[in-house]
Amino acid sequence: MADAKLNVGFLGLGIMGEAMARNLLKSGLFASVTVWNRTLAKCQTLVSEGAKMAETPAAVVSSCDITFAMLADPDAALAAVFGDNGVLKGISAGKGYVDMSTVDEATSTKIGEAVTAAGGRFVEGPVSGSKKPAIDGQLIIMGAGDKELYEQCQPAFRVMGKKSFYLGATGAAARMKLVVNMVMGSMMGAFCEGMALAEKSGLEQTALLEILGLGAMANPMFALKGPAIMSRSYPPAFPLKHQQKDLRLALALGDSLNQPLPVAAAANESFKAAKALGRGDDDFAAVYEATQQK
Amino acid sequence: MADAKLNVGFLGLGIMGEAMARNLLKSGLFASVTVWNRTLAKCQTLVSEGAKMAETPAAVVSSCDITFAMLADPDAALAAVFGDNGVLKGISAGKGYVDMSTVDEATSTKIGEAVTAAGGRFVEGPVSGSKKPAIDGQLIIMGAGDKELYEQCQPAFRVMGKKSFYLGATGAAARMKLVVNMVMGSMMGAFCEGMALAEKSGLEQTALLEILGLGAMANPMFALKGPAIMSRSYPPAFPLKHQQKDLRLALALGDSLNQPLPVAAAANESFKAAKALGRGDDDFAAVYEATQQK
Amino acid sequence: MADAKLNVGFLGLGIMGEAMARNLLKSGLFASVTVWNRTLAKCQTLVSEGAKMAETPAAVVSSCDITFAMLADPDAALAAVFGDNGVLKGISAGKGYVDMSTVDEATSTKIGEAVTAAGGRFVEGPVSGSKKPAIDGQLIIMGAGDKELYEQCQPAFRVMGKKSFYLGATGAAARMKLVVNMVMGSMMGAFCEGMALAEKSGLEQTALLEILGLGAMANPMFALKGPAIMSRSYPPAFPLKHQQKDLRLALALGDSLNQPLPVAAAANESFKAAKALGRGDDDFAAVYEATQQK
Amino acid sequence: MADAKLNVGFLGLGIMGEAMARNLLKSGLFASVTVWNRTLAKCQTLVSEGAKMAETPAAVVSSCDITFAMLADPDAALAAVFGDNGVLKGISAGKGYVDMSTVDEATSTKIGEAVTAAGGRFVEGPVSGSKKPAIDGQLIIMGAGDKELYEQCQPAFRVMGKKSFYLGATGAAARMKLVVNMVMGSMMGAFCEGMALAEKSGLEQTALLEILGLGAMANPMFALKGPAIMSRSYPPAFPLKHQQKDLRLALALGDSLNQPLPVAAAANESFKAAKALGRGDDDFAAVYEATQQK
Repeated sequence: MADAKLNVGFLGLGIMGEAMARNLLKSGLFASVTVWNRTLAKCQTLVSEGAKMAETPAAVVSSCDITFAMLADPDAALAAVFGDNGVLKGISAGKGYVDMSTVDEATSTKIGEAVTAAGGRFVEGPVSGSKKPAIDGQLIIMGAGDKELYEQCQPAFRVMGKKSFYLGATGAAARMKLVVNMVMGSMMGAFCEGMALAEKSGLEQTALLEILGLGAMANPMFALKGPAIMSRSYPPAFPLKHQQKDLRLALALGDSLNQPLPVAAAANESFKAAKALGRGDDDFAAVYEATQQK
Repeated sequence: MADAKLNVGFLGLGIMGEAMARNLLKSGLFASVTVWNRTLAKCQTLVSEGAKMAETPAAVVSSCDITFAMLADPDAALAAVFGDNGVLKGISAGKGYVDMSTVDEATSTKIGEAVTAAGGRFVEGPVSGSKKPAIDGQLIIMGAGDKELYEQCQPAFRVMGKKSFYLGATGAAARMKLVVNMVMGSMMGAFCEGMALAEKSGLEQTALLEILGLGAMANPMFALKGPAIMSRSYPPAFPLKHQQKDLRLALALGDSLNQPLPVAAAANESFKAAKALGRGDDDFAAVYEATQQK
Repeated sequence: MADAKLNVGFLGLGIMGEAMARNLLKSGLFASVTVWNRTLAKCQTLVSEGAKMAETPAAVVSSCDITFAMLADPDAALAAVFGDNGVLKGISAGKGYVDMSTVDEATSTKIGEAVTAAGGRFVEGPVSGSKKPAIDGQLIIMGAGDKELYEQCQPAFRVMGKKSFYLGATGAAARMKLVVNMVMGSMMGAFCEGMALAEKSGLEQTALLEILGLGAMANPMFALKGPAIMSRSYPPAFPLKHQQKDLRLALALGDSLNQPLPVAAAANESFKAAKALGRGDDDFAAVYEATQQK
Repeated sequence: MADAKLNVGFLGLGIMGEAMARNLLKSGLFASVTVWNRTLAKCQTLVSEGAKMAETPAAVVSSCDITFAMLADPDAALAAVFGDNGVLKGISAGKGYVDMSTVDEATSTKIGEAVTAAGGRFVEGPVSGSKKPAIDGQLIIMGAGDKELYEQCQPAFRVMGKKSFYLGATGAAARMKLVVNMVMGSMMGAFCEGMALAEKSGLEQTALLEILGLGAMANPMFALKGPAIMSRSYPPAFPLKHQQKDLRLALALGDSLNQPLPVAAAANESFKAAKALGRGDDDFAAVYEATQQK
């Protein structure tokens, strides 16, 4: 299999998916790239660039060795697999299905079991990074599930991402994403408290940002979100309600494992307060509105 | 004053102070650098490199235009100013005193008022950064107090640090340091919860560290402290009890300003739990022991 | 219906259920009391006191106007309704089913919808109080669902409880129980912190208990659990893991309604810490072990 | 001393103090009751009822065996002792001074040391209970300091209160009051979260109050404050800013003893949020405004 070029498929051509599929196509590493999208018209651009198109997920899967998917949410991910003419209708012994959508562990496990039961192989591969890294092939890929399939995907992962990790059995990648996003939510909560305390105590927020940016805590998130907070403007890169949901799920995971998480629990309450203020659809940095307003 | 070279002094030749005084000396920007240390023998090395020595803080101040100080703690800072043959005995109209020690706002204000009452000018200038940045002249200097003196110190600050900030009236720099350290404590609390949840949920902590290190939250602190946490080894760079004290003081500042800080309050409780476990003298990353142990 | 005596049934003769059924029987208010228990032998005592026995839930329901149930948990409550020869097999137009088990809102709603779809009427009626109040007919009954049936149950409720409340559509009683138990968990957390702080600061815990017992906060729970905490002995009246579960569910309810609950969230983390210490099966007062131990 | 009737004094005739002095007077147990108030005119009523009056604290103390004080706050308590013609000017070997004001441990210790240094004996005796219990002689008295003097005060304490406790060396009573008020603040925070969640989830708050009032958590505070919360009306019995201050001091006490107090810390943040909403002078039940508003 190392010698022959593979035929690969791609389900879901949203902002992320189209960029990822294009990178597969442009790499020249694959015999063919067959794409599908719920709204088929969205396939035209990639077809004009050399991709094939199929009319259903089943058709993609049955014509490809490995099919990748990047779908909007758990419902879309489940529909693509279990729906009429879904992945399960095209899967057969040896075929690989790699779901890179962000879904919860239960959804991922359900899909993985169904694919495996049908003789296929399954990898879950949620990513860290959004539009720009997708275009630049700089995503971080968290992989779990079938180890052999994961290894076989390395050329594709190298095209779509800057680094991939194999984390264990199906579900491990979903958990890792929760852990990462929990740390992110708590950090954002901590940051907003610092910004609010600076302002209340008569310090310039710009000075705080500069000082943080020069020290051991310097990180791209503070650098990016600090000015947004100062201008009280929160165009959604990662919607606050999704951050709060991830905190909730991470706390539930901690709960099931008897792992106390008091900082995350406090941060979660701040995000809930921000949701109650109508900030659920704003960027998650809008938790500042709850921190400051109180 | 821009033309004539200044005579400058330096009080306190600990690990940080000696390096800072040496940078002043090596710069060649000053007519003389006169040093003092409570244990006078510690002055010999710098004297052999070209510095002058004086036997008391008063003697330093009376022979210099601007005297810098880097003392161990508030008690040492107060003793150097108010003690026998202290700074106040040498200060006079126009002389500048720049205390770069880390002290609380009340201590700084007390020193500033006494220096000013004696006709002198005062700047508080706590720094961010430890031994290595002090040697490399890469400290971050938070300045407050007499604006004119602060400006006059710019050449010296550029020799000792990579960046300085003027933050307002005396006390502002002490407050800024509290805000920065509050964010740091909450971030460390959040990070340790992530590390603990990773372990409890069967994920490799190294994978979490790598993934965090590649994303928007990447920061030197996680990179440095992550391996320490994994090896459960906490040689003190910043003692946990000091981190907890700063959280307590920041919460008190928030209290006085009616600024709720729930994430910092939760983090503070975790640091208190770690102190109760006997980790007060370990590095502040040892809050992991309380997070994990619970 | 006010004139004719009703035939009533009772499913589930555990500690609580047997006492409740006996109170119905002894009241003389009903034409007959028909009982069922998964282990039928448990029916003998009540039969010897005058009750009838039926071999299945369906048989009870088909022979009674109103059937009460007091089952161990959601699984048992669902099995009694949806299982072979379950309640649904005996229900018909006009018959009433009153589930007094402690179940979550989803379970209660599922049962209520099925009973209603089969033409029956449904009331959920979880109680506050345990063995002794059940024996003494002093339970507090939280009712929700079919208002007419609730009113019709008043004579029975007066026999089993000291007070009943109609709270709204099915689900309202389950929610009320969560709210009550959330307050209870936070209060216990607060109490244990007071007990721990008293001890750490050199005060007698007995004095704290007496002082609390004489003031505006005096309540039976502190009076009962205080001595248990002092003796570090926690025979389970209400298992800690159930208290923690109720806190979790209440937080999830608050989450779904954008209601921040920071005190409950902090208390929940303490209960989780106690679970991690192996105290899940002890009485919920054992949260003291986590509070004190830290 | 058991045989001879004592001459007793009383400093401070505010709402509480006047009622307490009157109870001493009416008891007939003392040879005389000499009163003083900063505004002397306030003494007239008690003089008309049989009390003596003195023009300074020193004059009261020098003419009495034991002098009780009930002053507004730490500043008033310190002024009565250390001011011109203060207690210290009248104290001498064997005389007793019993400060029943609510003051912090540091203030109490300072007064106790001064009285003792002057040859006197000192008891701190803060009370639990407000106007009505003071009139009815039903206060709860927390005593600490000189044990012999405490015993000698028993007849007076029985006249003013329903129960007194000896808690240890000076400072113990101040600490006990903090512990009690910390539990109170957390309980109120928990209660308000329950009230808010009830409302958000469509339950009647009156039903919650009734149910809580019938169960193991039933307590006078919920019964009294519940209706206040429902009407959103908070006439100050115990001002919110004082409750928040006591939480802060209790947390600081826990901090000094390495006792984590996460529930109290979360409650404190809620009270701070209520202060930020301008509720500091309202009754402490107004923390509901922060809980509900978020």
